[in-house]
Amino acid sequence: MISEKMLDLVQNSSAIRAMFEEGKKMAAIYGAENVYDFSLGNPSVEPPERVKQAIIEVLNEDTPNLVHGYMNNAGYEDVRARVAKSVNQRFHTDFDETNLVMTVGAAGGLNVILKALLNPNDEVIVFAPFFGEYENYVKNYDGTLVIISPNTETFQPNLKEFAEKISEKTKAVIVNTPNNPTGVVYSEKTIMALAEIMYKAMDQFGTSIYLISDEPYRELVYDGIKVPYLTKYYENTIVAYSYSKSLSLPGERIGYLIIPSEVDDAEDLKSAANVATRILGYVNAPSLMQRAVAKCLEETTKVEIYDQNRKLLYETLKEYGFSCIKPEGAFYLFVKSPVENEKEFVKKAKEYHLLLVPGSSFGCSGYVRLAYCVSYDMIERALPVFKELAEYYKLG
Amino acid sequence: MISEKMLDLVQNSSAIRAMFEEGKKMAAIYGAENVYDFSLGNPSVEPPERVKQAIIEVLNEDTPNLVHGYMNNAGYEDVRARVAKSVNQRFHTDFDETNLVMTVGAAGGLNVILKALLNPNDEVIVFAPFFGEYENYVKNYDGTLVIISPNTETFQPNLKEFAEKISEKTKAVIVNTPNNPTGVVYSEKTIMALAEIMYKAMDQFGTSIYLISDEPYRELVYDGIKVPYLTKYYENTIVAYSYSKSLSLPGERIGYLIIPSEVDDAEDLKSAANVATRILGYVNAPSLMQRAVAKCLEETTKVEIYDQNRKLLYETLKEYGFSCIKPEGAFYLFVKSPVENEKEFVKKAKEYHLLLVPGSSFGCSGYVRLAYCVSYDMIERALPVFKELAEYYKLG
Repeated sequence: MISEKMLDLVQNSSAIRAMFEEGKKMAAIYGAENVYDFSLGNPSVEPPERVKQAIIEVLNEDTPNLVHGYMNNAGYEDVRARVAKSVNQRFHTDFDETNLVMTVGAAGGLNVILKALLNPNDEVIVFAPFFGEYENYVKNYDGTLVIISPNTETFQPNLKEFAEKISEKTKAVIVNTPNNPTGVVYSEKTIMALAEIMYKAMDQFGTSIYLISDEPYRELVYDGIKVPYLTKYYENTIVAYSYSKSLSLPGERIGYLIIPSEVDDAEDLKSAANVATRILGYVNAPSLMQRAVAKCLEETTKVEIYDQNRKLLYETLKEYGFSCIKPEGAFYLFVKSPVENEKEFVKKAKEYHLLLVPGSSFGCSGYVRLAYCVSYDMIERALPVFKELAEYYKLG
Repeated sequence: MISEKMLDLVQNSSAIRAMFEEGKKMAAIYGAENVYDFSLGNPSVEPPERVKQAIIEVLNEDTPNLVHGYMNNAGYEDVRARVAKSVNQRFHTDFDETNLVMTVGAAGGLNVILKALLNPNDEVIVFAPFFGEYENYVKNYDGTLVIISPNTETFQPNLKEFAEKISEKTKAVIVNTPNNPTGVVYSEKTIMALAEIMYKAMDQFGTSIYLISDEPYRELVYDGIKVPYLTKYYENTIVAYSYSKSLSLPGERIGYLIIPSEVDDAEDLKSAANVATRILGYVNAPSLMQRAVAKCLEETTKVEIYDQNRKLLYETLKEYGFSCIKPEGAFYLFVKSPVENEKEFVKKAKEYHLLLVPGSSFGCSGYVRLAYCVSYDMIERALPVFKELAEYYKLG
């Protein structure tokens, strides 16, 4: 009787979320200290202390009706201006408040821009492995997801296949770098080659193809790696940013879209994003948090804590005989399953109270994702379990 | 190039929002004190003092990763349990945390439930005058809006036409009482008659028809009027609530859905709402505000302030010769236009810096809406303008 599409979605609901719920149940049964939950990208590092101060400052400085009231659907003008200025300083861009829409996280931003862009059956290209929710977001607006198969050597996008699959139906390409689930940062060389293919396709087909850069992990990089700012490599780039990871505020649902003035149909697109924000029911990004993050633009999470986790987990798992690519950013490790069907591995790990997410949730079977945004202590406690699994599978 | 649907929507974008933006521009040009902006339902009464205390308490009492982190997509279990308990105490219902989904305002809640319910071409019935955004929400999920023409005598729903138009295609009926834009509260008699028609139709067609009660104005009632709690009159009722008006927090985007256990396909529907919250990109209602409102369940806005506005505006406008129904709730006055095409009246009023919203935005032309959630002082300053308009149109 209810929506048939939704019934299907409920059946195939996010394995990540299912695992997260499962983890909470297992913790209740076996004790939190006996469950090793690597399932969800829920930051373990506390938000910077400045965030709390900023919230209290906003409450004390501004009138309550300003702090909690309606504003332009795109967000407070002064907040957008401050965010634009900060982005400009960091990346030598030239945005102003009219290029920004404050959003209900990056997920909200992606929905807004896809709603604004897609006509039915428009194609949106993603590179496996990719955040599985993209498929749902694209389907929300009757678009078709086109998946480029993974390059499991480097986990850089498979550009050969991309050049073959980009077509007159392609409306957008989503990239996510630093990447969930691999932790790989797409190199400048990759980005330039990707842009070239896209420019060529636009030329060939006489269409506009947008590059949507989903950037919740932009600030989470290790070893001094630089993440190219994509608007500088490809003119039709839209940025979807979130403070979920950079300020450890995933529950607050606060982020932004940048729609540069040089993208095709920029004025229409900005207006459409504004209206989409409203009619999708977001109306606007949460008001208090808009004002609070505007006071925290110089802040980032303690990346060094994730880096410790990364090193411990990556090095020890390699030592035990697991194989995986070394993450350069984000807080995920994408590990090759010791058996072809990684769901069997996930199931086996669960017997040891170790919670992993199957790679097939990211369009890349044969792998599992570990979210290492957890306590160092939990990783230490989990290592013997990984060792037992390595022995069980005769690795190393 | 962008979404064609969205281009249309941008063209016909919310007259209310357009007026709100216009008002800000006019205030910048003529001075805020010389603009009489009755366009937007942005509460003028400050949030209860308790809200600020509650936010600070949450920040001080709970760990930052609890306050700002991910939780179940439906919201914190303890918050949902507290809200359920409070609703049960007030309305003698029997909900628990599993019946609630915390949402990004009522607009978010309506989108979630429509996404969960609608198959393409399902019909959703609304009673004119109605909040114009319902049309967009229904279209978001390829549903068809069916509008029941207004009963301009009482502004209670036109049940005769409802009984004629309810059909095997009807999936849901949205009611909004206290009503935006009329301020009318649907009487118990109306609700019982409406429920009877719906039960009869379900029987006749062998379908499930859901009543969606959009209740942002539930607490805003005058003269001791009681607003029936609709789940008690019709089994398939879903409640969409918002704290936007009751706690003056419209910018925070915090509300909830109640999906009672007795609705048809309750389990599927609850799961679908949970998934819809996630895949629409809301992910969850803003976390800090979830925890803060759970501490403010005994609080409501100062209705007496809106009541003063209501009395001054209603009585003076009547005295000047305008005709309108006396609002029993919400903070809107729905005034008959002195000329048939109310857009002319809106235009004329704008010449006097008086901003009104045309009734056609609510499916009821020939009327205009005034939002009196403004300062008493502004109403006093605006009265001479209304008088001039009354004289211009030779009223009274």
